[in-house]
Amino acid sequence: MIDARAFIRAKRDRQMHGSGEIQAFIMGCLRGEVPDYQLSAWLMAAFLNGLDVAETDALTEALLRSGRVFDWSDLKSPTADKHSTGGVGDKTSLILAPVVAACGVGVPMVSGRGLGHTGGTLDKLESIPGFRTRLSPETMRAQLATLGVVMVGQGPDLAPADGMVYALRDVTSTVECEAFIVASIVSKKIAAGSSAVVYDVKCGNGAFMTSLATARHLARRLVDTTRTLGRSAGALVTDMSQPLGSAVGNALEVREAVDVLRGGGPTDVRFLTLELAALMLELCGAERERHPAMARATRALESGAAWETFLALVEAQGGDPGSVQNARGLPQASVIRAAPAPRSGYVARIDTFGLGELLVRMGGGRAAKGQEVDPRVGLKVQVRLGDAVRAGDVMAELHLAIEDTEAMERSVACFKIQDAPAAVPEIVLERVD
Amino acid sequence: MIDARAFIRAKRDRQMHGSGEIQAFIMGCLRGEVPDYQLSAWLMAAFLNGLDVAETDALTEALLRSGRVFDWSDLKSPTADKHSTGGVGDKTSLILAPVVAACGVGVPMVSGRGLGHTGGTLDKLESIPGFRTRLSPETMRAQLATLGVVMVGQGPDLAPADGMVYALRDVTSTVECEAFIVASIVSKKIAAGSSAVVYDVKCGNGAFMTSLATARHLARRLVDTTRTLGRSAGALVTDMSQPLGSAVGNALEVREAVDVLRGGGPTDVRFLTLELAALMLELCGAERERHPAMARATRALESGAAWETFLALVEAQGGDPGSVQNARGLPQASVIRAAPAPRSGYVARIDTFGLGELLVRMGGGRAAKGQEVDPRVGLKVQVRLGDAVRAGDVMAELHLAIEDTEAMERSVACFKIQDAPAAVPEIVLERVD
Repeated sequence: MIDARAFIRAKRDRQMHGSGEIQAFIMGCLRGEVPDYQLSAWLMAAFLNGLDVAETDALTEALLRSGRVFDWSDLKSPTADKHSTGGVGDKTSLILAPVVAACGVGVPMVSGRGLGHTGGTLDKLESIPGFRTRLSPETMRAQLATLGVVMVGQGPDLAPADGMVYALRDVTSTVECEAFIVASIVSKKIAAGSSAVVYDVKCGNGAFMTSLATARHLARRLVDTTRTLGRSAGALVTDMSQPLGSAVGNALEVREAVDVLRGGGPTDVRFLTLELAALMLELCGAERERHPAMARATRALESGAAWETFLALVEAQGGDPGSVQNARGLPQASVIRAAPAPRSGYVARIDTFGLGELLVRMGGGRAAKGQEVDPRVGLKVQVRLGDAVRAGDVMAELHLAIEDTEAMERSVACFKIQDAPAAVPEIVLERVD
Repeated sequence: MIDARAFIRAKRDRQMHGSGEIQAFIMGCLRGEVPDYQLSAWLMAAFLNGLDVAETDALTEALLRSGRVFDWSDLKSPTADKHSTGGVGDKTSLILAPVVAACGVGVPMVSGRGLGHTGGTLDKLESIPGFRTRLSPETMRAQLATLGVVMVGQGPDLAPADGMVYALRDVTSTVECEAFIVASIVSKKIAAGSSAVVYDVKCGNGAFMTSLATARHLARRLVDTTRTLGRSAGALVTDMSQPLGSAVGNALEVREAVDVLRGGGPTDVRFLTLELAALMLELCGAERERHPAMARATRALESGAAWETFLALVEAQGGDPGSVQNARGLPQASVIRAAPAPRSGYVARIDTFGLGELLVRMGGGRAAKGQEVDPRVGLKVQVRLGDAVRAGDVMAELHLAIEDTEAMERSVACFKIQDAPAAVPEIVLERVD
């Protein structure tokens, strides 16, 4: 049995842990032999004194080995997955999964719920009436074999030690630590079983990483740790200094994803989704080069094959295909109000974090785990960075459950308008191979 | 209610806490509003990022205010107390308390138990058959008024937050932190109610502080924090590179203390006790200068007044005076073995920590809280640093519960004998006023 005091003392004194020690400590925590107050003391010591690459890899493996690890290698097709570090209006997974599946690559996607200012794929999927996100491993396997795609929530048997560690990080102010973030993300992605993982590391005022340097560093470590654990990996660092697309809010985002799947929708959503899809096709070996990969993904989208796959996915997981086929089939808010530009000029800055927080206030996100979200509410942002606006133009449309003048005022305050034309950020800031 | 996450985050990010925040956090912990895993994360953050003087003072006050604070100001005499940071063979309290009481100064002494290599006054007192160390506050007050001295253990109502914090420090490897040590010691000493406190900060290979610099620093902070909280204070930094006196072990140490009280005993024990007594008399205002204070303490010892006071103390607290009056009245070990010098030369080094650990092995100390100790077992160290010895001379006499050849071998290994004469350390290394 691990000597938890000696283990904590070692990190307190800036010593390096061996991978066996990390494994034993995490298993001790999971079995209840190491109480949570010792784990939290170690978390703070590791937060302040750091974990090196080998320690991060070992922690990732320890979290991974705490539970079930899916193995899809008996399927005929290769498999690929994507993880986003979280942003505002990021509905790419809803389009990406059927696009890649329509290209003949299996997508066993395990997603999370929204928390704080960031949304979560599970909440978006559950705004489709009847859609089930809890499936048995047998059902997942059968659906993956027939449809090529399955989208579920993380069951309690996938990296359970990560859930335990995360709960303590949350209450001990040890969340923002790169090593912990890497171990948490990668362990879950590897446990989900895909042979290739693409990371979309968001960067900007709506992301956890606000500087390019920290986002790039995280992307590098996500990719390296994933490879060390035996899977293909790549990453894009992408802009989150404004919402992705127009819709922010669960049902509104599903509607926008459907627009893209049917050939329309905002260009940035379409562009980023195809970039991610092409990278997934390359990394899993379905294509050897970027250009044919991009062509294949684009074809899957433009041919309607991805849309058909999405409809089949919805139906297979208990959702009502009519709800996404019909323009008014999803839950809709009763109060729709426009937030007007207070002056003429150019959109110079969008407080993306503020918009995410506003969605929480409106009931469309959650301030704490376990809260219910209202799928109907949200925003449709009508302007983008660099746009010229005139006083009174609609900057955003608010979809509200009830009248809320403060929400209106707050939404207006999230847009900064200035006289001079403003810079327009690129969507893909960097690729990490 | 305190926002524990924000409080932890502040220390994680090297910010300073206000004294009100520290008070609210500690009270939150005590009331169970802040769970132990948050306290332990904060302990590690404070261990690594430090607490400044103002924060240490605030923590001390918060621990102090978590429970009862004795007030002896209605007694006719001034009051004084002593605290030792812990060593091997340190039986000074047993002599010091009656000496100072015999000088007309009240000594309401609250002591602890031994742990690891260090002994504790409570364990020593309890080797006197019948001696009770748990007294009600009313009994303490009455005895202090009549006898001038009371020696008890810390009840659960004295600085209870310190007990809670200490228990967590112990299991989270955050013990060796000066600010925590200061707050723990000073809060308990202030709660015990004396108007003057003398600290005996041990320094050497049998102490927690092995360097003069760290011992001096701790002494300074103990004195300063005690003064900030409104009591007189002073400290001596004293040598612990060899056991104090000859006896190590509970009943053996009581016997040695009795020898000193009756005018005999080892000179170092007598010398240090009188130094501490004189300082207590000065600090509580019973004497204004060092020389008359020393003369008064010496008189109390040499006149037999201190011995009479000790006998009265034993009787008042339920102990059998005959057990200390008769040479064989205390519990005695059945197996007594001599550890011989393996060669001739000079005693150059004594592994004092090793001797303390040996006592634990023999059953006379405890490896973990709550263990029973055998009052009979111990060592009588017959040589001191610098002594010339001949091969076969007895270096130590082991008082054992059972035959134990390994203990014999270990005791011999604690003494390093070399050819050249060795330096003899001073007993009092520094005074901190």
